[in-house]
Order: sequence, then structure tokens, then C-alpha cells
Amino acid sequence: MAQIPDSHRDILVGQNFAHIATLGPDGAPQTSPVWVDVDGNDVLFNSAEGRQKVRNLDRDPRVALSVHDSGNPYRYIEIRGKVVEKTHEGADAHIDKMAQKYLGEDKYPWKSPNEQRVIYRIRPEHINTMG
Amino acid sequence: MAQIPDSHRDILVGQNFAHIATLGPDGAPQTSPVWVDVDGNDVLFNSAEGRQKVRNLDRDPRVALSVHDSGNPYRYIEIRGKVVEKTHEGADAHIDKMAQKYLGEDKYPWKSPNEQRVIYRIRPEHINTMG
Repeated sequence: MAQIPDSHRDILVGQNFAHIATLGPDGAPQTSPVWVDVDGNDVLFNSAEGRQKVRNLDRDPRVALSVHDSGNPYRYIEIRGKVVEKTHEGADAHIDKMAQKYLGEDKYPWKSPNEQRVIYRIRPEHINTMG
Repeated sequence: MAQIPDSHRDILVGQNFAHIATLGPDGAPQTSPVWVDVDGNDVLFNSAEGRQKVRNLDRDPRVALSVHDSGNPYRYIEIRGKVVEKTHEGADAHIDKMAQKYLGEDKYPWKSPNEQRVIYRIRPEHINTMG
């Protein structure tokens, strides 16, 4: 396991977008920007069942993400690791918490009536930082 | 092949950082922020021999990148494709061009004496956009 250094933890705590890379069915990489949360030394993100990255992570838990400080993009953190937990429990409350962090709104405003939210917990195995 | 849509081409042309995902020796994803250039319908980026992502791409040309508009992170482009060319020719001039784009400086200021620069040309196969 790798420790998130105190020097760059603020990048994950702040309103910065993580770009998360997962593996498609053929093993090719895919990447997309996501909101992220940090819980102790784990990174959490919230998605919805049926999305490509959810299908990818359910097939292969290996994941990477990189996040640059929006105020100084030469300062960033890169994390490689694995999904250690997937849960639906608390996922609606958690996406509201993410909306508070990123949008300053009490409720996540873009929820579809039929979507099932899901929280992925990522445990870092390798971390690089810059700046 | 997938076409970069005119609606989101400015994200690649502007001073936005791409997060590029490559595959490690064990097939796990890695991702890091990079400067990018766009040439016709190809995405170019400039790296240096010996770096992890160079070693990864030399082993497996499959690549993904996502870039959000720094002025509106809910507007982004995701590209999946393959490296179709790797060249050292013109790579020093090209990193200077990138320094002009991102730093407003004539010369790339961080060149190491012994580093050999390299340009990768990525041909998009799948493109998603948002916003």
C-alpha cells in the first residue's frame, strides 16, 4: 500500500477533477474526469450502474487516476491501485456530499429517476507526485 | 477512426492539460497529466525516452486521454486510440512549441542535457464529449 502524502492530499480534498483510467473489455485503457472523495488513505468516487467505467471496474478492479491542482497544473498526484469495495449503501447520500463539495449545492442536481448510484473505494498501491 | 468534433476541438487547442492513460507491463492502467498538441485529426504529445509512459507505449500502443476545459470542467473530451507514429525528428522544436503554448516561453525551460525528446502521434478511434 502507498500513503497519500500530506503535501498533496489537499489536491484530492479540493474541488479538483480526477481523471480515472479503467480497462475496457479488450484490456485497452479508457479515461474520464470524475469527482473524487478521500477517506483516510482511500480514494472514493461515485458513479451509476450501467456506465462504462462501472462495467469496466466490475470486470477488472485495476484503476489509475491523476489529479492536477486547478490553481497550478504543474502540481499533481498520480495514484495506481485497485477497487477494494463497491457498495450501493449510502451512495445517494454520498453523491449529495460530492455535489456539496464540487457545486456548493445540498443535493446532486443531475440524478436520473432510475439510476442506481454506486461508491467505489480505491486503495492506492503506487503514488507519484509532482510540484 | 473518429473525428474530433469542432465543438470540442478548442479544448485540445487551448492551454488545458490532458490526462493520458497507458498500460503498464502487467496491463494495469497508469495515468498522468501531459501537454497536448493537435495536428489535423491526430493528437500529439511530447515526452522523453526512459519515462514510464514511453516504455508503456513502446510495449503497447493503446492509449486513452481525457481533457477538461479548465474554465468549465463539465465540458470535456475523451479520446481512445492508438499510437500510429513515434519520432525523435523535430521533437526538440516541438517541445519548444509546447512551451510557447503552455508557458508563453520561446524555449522549453526544463530540458535535461541528456534527455532525448520524442513525439507520439495518437489516432483517435473513439471519442466522447460532454458539455
